[in-house]
Amino acid sequence: MFPPPLRVADDGWSIEVLDQTALPHQTVVRRLATFEQALEAIVSMRVRGAPLIGVTAAYAVCLALMVDDTDAALHEAADALLASRPTAVNLRAAVERLRDVLGPLPRAERVAAAYQEAAALADVERSACRAIGDYGLGLLRAIHDRRGHDRPVQVLTHCNAGWLATLEYGTALAPVYRAGEAGLPVHVWVDETRPRSQGWLTAWELGMRKVPHTAIADTASGHLLRSGKVDVVLVGADRVTRRGDVCNKIGTSLVALAAREAKVPFYVAFPSSTVDWTLDHGTDVPIEFRPAEELTHVRHCRVAPEGTAVWNPGFDVTPARFVTALITERGICAASVRGLRGLFPGRRA
Amino acid sequence: MFPPPLRVADDGWSIEVLDQTALPHQTVVRRLATFEQALEAIVSMRVRGAPLIGVTAAYAVCLALMVDDTDAALHEAADALLASRPTAVNLRAAVERLRDVLGPLPRAERVAAAYQEAAALADVERSACRAIGDYGLGLLRAIHDRRGHDRPVQVLTHCNAGWLATLEYGTALAPVYRAGEAGLPVHVWVDETRPRSQGWLTAWELGMRKVPHTAIADTASGHLLRSGKVDVVLVGADRVTRRGDVCNKIGTSLVALAAREAKVPFYVAFPSSTVDWTLDHGTDVPIEFRPAEELTHVRHCRVAPEGTAVWNPGFDVTPARFVTALITERGICAASVRGLRGLFPGRRA
Repeated sequence: MFPPPLRVADDGWSIEVLDQTALPHQTVVRRLATFEQALEAIVSMRVRGAPLIGVTAAYAVCLALMVDDTDAALHEAADALLASRPTAVNLRAAVERLRDVLGPLPRAERVAAAYQEAAALADVERSACRAIGDYGLGLLRAIHDRRGHDRPVQVLTHCNAGWLATLEYGTALAPVYRAGEAGLPVHVWVDETRPRSQGWLTAWELGMRKVPHTAIADTASGHLLRSGKVDVVLVGADRVTRRGDVCNKIGTSLVALAAREAKVPFYVAFPSSTVDWTLDHGTDVPIEFRPAEELTHVRHCRVAPEGTAVWNPGFDVTPARFVTALITERGICAASVRGLRGLFPGRRA
Repeated sequence: MFPPPLRVADDGWSIEVLDQTALPHQTVVRRLATFEQALEAIVSMRVRGAPLIGVTAAYAVCLALMVDDTDAALHEAADALLASRPTAVNLRAAVERLRDVLGPLPRAERVAAAYQEAAALADVERSACRAIGDYGLGLLRAIHDRRGHDRPVQVLTHCNAGWLATLEYGTALAPVYRAGEAGLPVHVWVDETRPRSQGWLTAWELGMRKVPHTAIADTASGHLLRSGKVDVVLVGADRVTRRGDVCNKIGTSLVALAAREAKVPFYVAFPSSTVDWTLDHGTDVPIEFRPAEELTHVRHCRVAPEGTAVWNPGFDVTPARFVTALITERGICAASVRGLRGLFPGRRA
């Protein structure tokens, strides 16, 4: 079995992650034995994907408490994590959850409770991804029935929202993997997703699972969609607001616009930990700006002229009105207050 | 003075081109002394940009005739050129023009006439670019007056349609350079333009002329436009149909969609040699597909997983209805049959 994106090491306390900055060229498993190492792995995107950084952040709190289980240490670790990647809300949800659970406990019980919470969080994300896959599989099956059984269902995805971004199955790619298990033929069009080119991670993980796929430049998605080669767009999300606005990897909103223009359905798949129940509008989501080098250098090699200024937002917002529907672990709903409230009646800010 | 994109060498017959595949990292001037070398320079995009490949093709015919001035050689050279880059119509117009002019001439007069025609074509393109710049400058000046003189006019461009793509000034960038000459402050947002990343050529040539600029990933143009940071989009074209559909570098249509959504005007600048008077619809333009390596490799370094399949169209079509107006050497017009006919009353298929 290939190394999973994240697991607790055999020592029972340190964390092993698949270093995604080395993929798809090298398979490097990194052991995270300190809070600082875990934080660095999140910041430099050795681990990435909204659900996975949530789980990693939970284990980072565990590692911090191993050294110092005081209130001060707990809050310092939490604050550093909250500042590390501001856009994805799963990280915030995970850190706040641990702080809320651990704060009231006696210091001697905190480490064990932290590991228990982190493991529980990982379990929740795993089963959410599987459920997302099952609901999404229904959509793919309906397309297959409608479009004819002589061709695979044609999916376009942006960035990487597969098993590398989660722990199993993924979010956007969960329906694709479940389709594979169910014998439903699927072909995936993969956006390169500059500047960090997570499309190559997607191509690699699809290849590992023998899912047929074809890569395109981000610039080509409009032409592809207009050419009638895509049945459905499936993307993940880093934060979804109460009314269904979707903050996701930079470029997602362009794909959504092009899909709408081409009359191709555009679905967003995510676990409920990605919903920010406190926000109405996607424009209120803090957008993380990333280093210029992500654009000016490729594999440590400079591609831009010396001294070129760069504007490098990591995410953009797709308004709810461009979203055909949302796929969650509770089912499929409209991208609206009513749609989300229907699936998650108890949740509010 | 920096080497121009193309010039006749001091020997009076061979051609010197600035090798754009080496830019922005190295300045390499290549001497083209045979038809085969000129054809290779076009195919491998050492010279690129619709107006420049038209002129280069004209000189390629000259080089072919230097060796063999028979009808057979003329037609063979013309056919090879016509097949080399099918999308940009300037190349076709240039080759057909030379074939029409040279065909009826006695063999002994053909070489001299060919060089004369090629030089005339270059002159026409040069003055067209300058005129485009003047008309576009009027637009930028109006924006500057409306938006306030305390800030530069904010232009977004895609691909490279500057002096590297032409002989002087460029098409989309001609208004920017004319603004610089006129003392009007302009800042240019530069799309990277994967897969060939001509945005780095744009950044480089703007830097050479001291025009302030900032690069973005292609994925970021939607977010940029929605952020209100752009006053106007200026792009070039490889072929424009009678009714104003625009075939241009892959990704242009996504920028047009995002500009329309953000209510930012979207202008297309080109000389009349870019108009295909025989075509109505952009969807009838043949789209060139380019090698997979353009996407899978960056500076000879593999970025994609081994064996990844690629779909790599070089161009896409922006429907006329997304285009605010066209900027040509005769003036500015609506992207429509009536608009183009108004500027070019004598032209028809």
